[in-house]
Amino acid sequence: MTDIRENEIRADAPVSSDASVAFIGIIRTPWPDRSLCPRQGRLDGPECRLVLQPQWCDALQGLEKFEMIDVLYWLDRSRRDLVTQSPKSDGRTVGTFALRSPVRPNPIGLSKVKLVGIDGGEVVVRGLDCIDGTPLIDIKPDICAFSPIAPPKQSAEF
Amino acid sequence: MTDIRENEIRADAPVSSDASVAFIGIIRTPWPDRSLCPRQGRLDGPECRLVLQPQWCDALQGLEKFEMIDVLYWLDRSRRDLVTQSPKSDGRTVGTFALRSPVRPNPIGLSKVKLVGIDGGEVVVRGLDCIDGTPLIDIKPDICAFSPIAPPKQSAEF
Repeated sequence: MTDIRENEIRADAPVSSDASVAFIGIIRTPWPDRSLCPRQGRLDGPECRLVLQPQWCDALQGLEKFEMIDVLYWLDRSRRDLVTQSPKSDGRTVGTFALRSPVRPNPIGLSKVKLVGIDGGEVVVRGLDCIDGTPLIDIKPDICAFSPIAPPKQSAEF
Repeated sequence: MTDIRENEIRADAPVSSDASVAFIGIIRTPWPDRSLCPRQGRLDGPECRLVLQPQWCDALQGLEKFEMIDVLYWLDRSRRDLVTQSPKSDGRTVGTFALRSPVRPNPIGLSKVKLVGIDGGEVVVRGLDCIDGTPLIDIKPDICAFSPIAPPKQSAEF
């Protein structure tokens, strides 16, 4: 994609390749294309499924204790070269890092969602807003819910 | 790294390479190595700086309106092959996705931090917990603060 709206700015160098992302599964949602996705997920929205690759299923152990989880995914249809964007196509631009637009140098989507349940290697959640088939890249327990479980750090253990 | 603690499980296939991450800057913190990092960042912790590469500086336009931002970074010293982990080295394991450990198939760190200010191409924040020099991969405005600004979606514009 090389088209650009009024006053938008493209990066003056190609987006570099400094590290590799591994897809760990796929996200199943009710929305087959972007025009049908909600702008933001709602915690009372429809159930969606994070379908893990078999080798990562055991990595879900213990996740069931959390009410909220952070889901990271790769917005594989997004262009990556816009520095400023005009979301309303009216010539007024905003910096990419002041938007949660999928268009960004690293098209990583992030949603804090409600954990409904774990069904084998699939995690059922509410609160996503991405296209059906979006590649999954990480799941993290919500940091607030996590705080009471993790004691103050005694020493470096990792 | 191939060493493993009691009862930990390694992935049974290498971590794949499905997409590329571009570093967009570097994070300056007071902690030169992992043993000195806090377990979790605190919003009253020391100031840290997100130092953007020159081509991405204009992407900060409008970010100053937000009090809280999400910062994503690449934990480039972390192993990526553990399915379950024993954080306390006591033989009890937890799934990687039930931990916020830096050890995960995609070693992406995520912190919600307080925006102190923007100084040219540098963003001053409080609340990080990562090593000095950690590669920066994304900045997003906090979704809660963002909600009142974004009107309900009328149509697909991206």
